[in-house]
Amino acid sequence: MKFSIITLFPNLINTYISESIIKRAIEKNKIEVETLDLRNFTNYTHNQVDDYQFGGGKGMVLMVEPVVNAIESCKTEESLVLLTSPQGKTWNQHNVKSYLKEYKHLIIICGHYEGFDERILDYVDVEISVGDYVLTGGEIASLIILDSMTRLIEGVIAKESHLNDSFENSLLDHPVYTKPVDFRGSKVPEVLLSGHHANIDKFRQEGRLKNTYTKRPDLLEHSNLSEKDLKYLEEIKNRKEK
Amino acid sequence: MKFSIITLFPNLINTYISESIIKRAIEKNKIEVETLDLRNFTNYTHNQVDDYQFGGGKGMVLMVEPVVNAIESCKTEESLVLLTSPQGKTWNQHNVKSYLKEYKHLIIICGHYEGFDERILDYVDVEISVGDYVLTGGEIASLIILDSMTRLIEGVIAKESHLNDSFENSLLDHPVYTKPVDFRGSKVPEVLLSGHHANIDKFRQEGRLKNTYTKRPDLLEHSNLSEKDLKYLEEIKNRKEK
Repeated sequence: MKFSIITLFPNLINTYISESIIKRAIEKNKIEVETLDLRNFTNYTHNQVDDYQFGGGKGMVLMVEPVVNAIESCKTEESLVLLTSPQGKTWNQHNVKSYLKEYKHLIIICGHYEGFDERILDYVDVEISVGDYVLTGGEIASLIILDSMTRLIEGVIAKESHLNDSFENSLLDHPVYTKPVDFRGSKVPEVLLSGHHANIDKFRQEGRLKNTYTKRPDLLEHSNLSEKDLKYLEEIKNRKEK
Repeated sequence: MKFSIITLFPNLINTYISESIIKRAIEKNKIEVETLDLRNFTNYTHNQVDDYQFGGGKGMVLMVEPVVNAIESCKTEESLVLLTSPQGKTWNQHNVKSYLKEYKHLIIICGHYEGFDERILDYVDVEISVGDYVLTGGEIASLIILDSMTRLIEGVIAKESHLNDSFENSLLDHPVYTKPVDFRGSKVPEVLLSGHHANIDKFRQEGRLKNTYTKRPDLLEHSNLSEKDLKYLEEIKNRKEK
C-alpha cells in the first residue's frame, strides 16, 4: 500500500511516520509513504498556494492549480484521490477494511485554512471526513486514514490484536487488565487469574456486550449476535433494570 | 485554556504545537499546552509503562499506575480528565463549543497499543472517541481535541471564519473559489465576481443547503431553517428530481 500525502505541513507528517508502528510498517516494506510539500507545486511567486475567496469573506482558500499539479505528479492508473474535508463521507472501520482491499495507492490531499477552491473536487475521487468537527487543517485527518489502515495490514501488528478490536462485529472491545493485581485496593477480576479459558472467554464476551450496551447501544443494531450473545445481553439489561 | 497531554510520544505532540495556528495561539497566550511523557511517571524498571494482559492475549496494555501518577502530577480542582478511546463518546462540533465554555483545564490521556487497564477509568471523567475507527494510539485523537477547540478561541482565527464553519446550524459550508478565474476552462461562478452582496449571500446560503442535502442529508434533521431556507431546499429537491 502506498500513501502520497499532499500537505502544507510535511514536517508533521514526517514526524508521525518516523515513530512507532507506522515507522516499523515502513521499515518492513508493508507501506510506502510519500510526503508532497504543496509549496513545491505552485507557479505563483513566493510559493503562494492560497488566496482570498472571490465574493468577499475572511480566510485563505487553497488554490486549485498547485493541488492539481501535485496530484498529477504522483497519480497513476492505480491511484485513488482523497480530499480530507468536514464535508466528506464519514470515515469508519468498515471503510478502513474496504479501502485496504480495493486500492493500492491513495493520494490524500490535506485541506487547510478556510477551505479549498471548489474546482479541486473535479480532480478528487472521494471527500473524506474523520468526524463532525472542524480542524485547522487536514493533516491530522490524513494521519487518521494512514494509521487506521496501516495497523490492519498483515504483519504490522499481531492478527489476534485486531480481531478483537472495537467495532469488530459492531461491538466495543472488552475490559483488559495488567499488573499490578491490586492497585490502591482495586483488584483484577479473579476469573482473569484463574487460567480457566472457557470462563475467561465468557467474561470477555460478556464484557464486550456490556461495554457496547452501556457506551454505544446504537452499535448493537448492526451487530450479528449469536443466540448465546443475545441471552447474555438480556441478562445484562435485566440486571441494569433492577 | 490549558491542555495537559499525557503521551508515550511527546515528540509528535510537540511537533504539532510548534506549527501553524496552534503555535500562534500559544504565542498569543490563548492556550497553554503541557506535554507529559508517560515514561517519566513509572516506578517500574526500564521505564516500563505497559504489559501483557491478565487472562492471556496479544498486545500490550497501558498500566494504571504511571497514568494515575501523571494525572495526579497536573490535576487541580479545575481539571477535567479525558481519555481518548474508541469506546468513548463521539467528539463533535457541539462538544467543542460546550467544552470551551465549561472547562479551563483538560488533561488528555492518549491511549496506546492494545488498550488500557480498565482501572484507569476510575480516574477519568470522560472517554472521548474521535470516530468509529481504531488507531494505533490516542495521540492523533488528542490533537483533534486540541485543534478543534483552539481554533474557536476568540482571537485565534477571524471570527467571521468560524461563523461560516461546516456544522454551524447543522449545515455544511458553501463552495468557495479563489484565483485564477479560469482554470483549464473551469470558471468561477459569475455572481461571485459581480460585487452584488445580496446575490452573493443568496448564492452562498443556497450552496450550504445544496451541499448539505447532497452530501450529508442526515444533518438537515437537526438544523433550524428559516422559511426562506426551506423554500430554497424545496427548489433544490425539485431540481434534483427532474
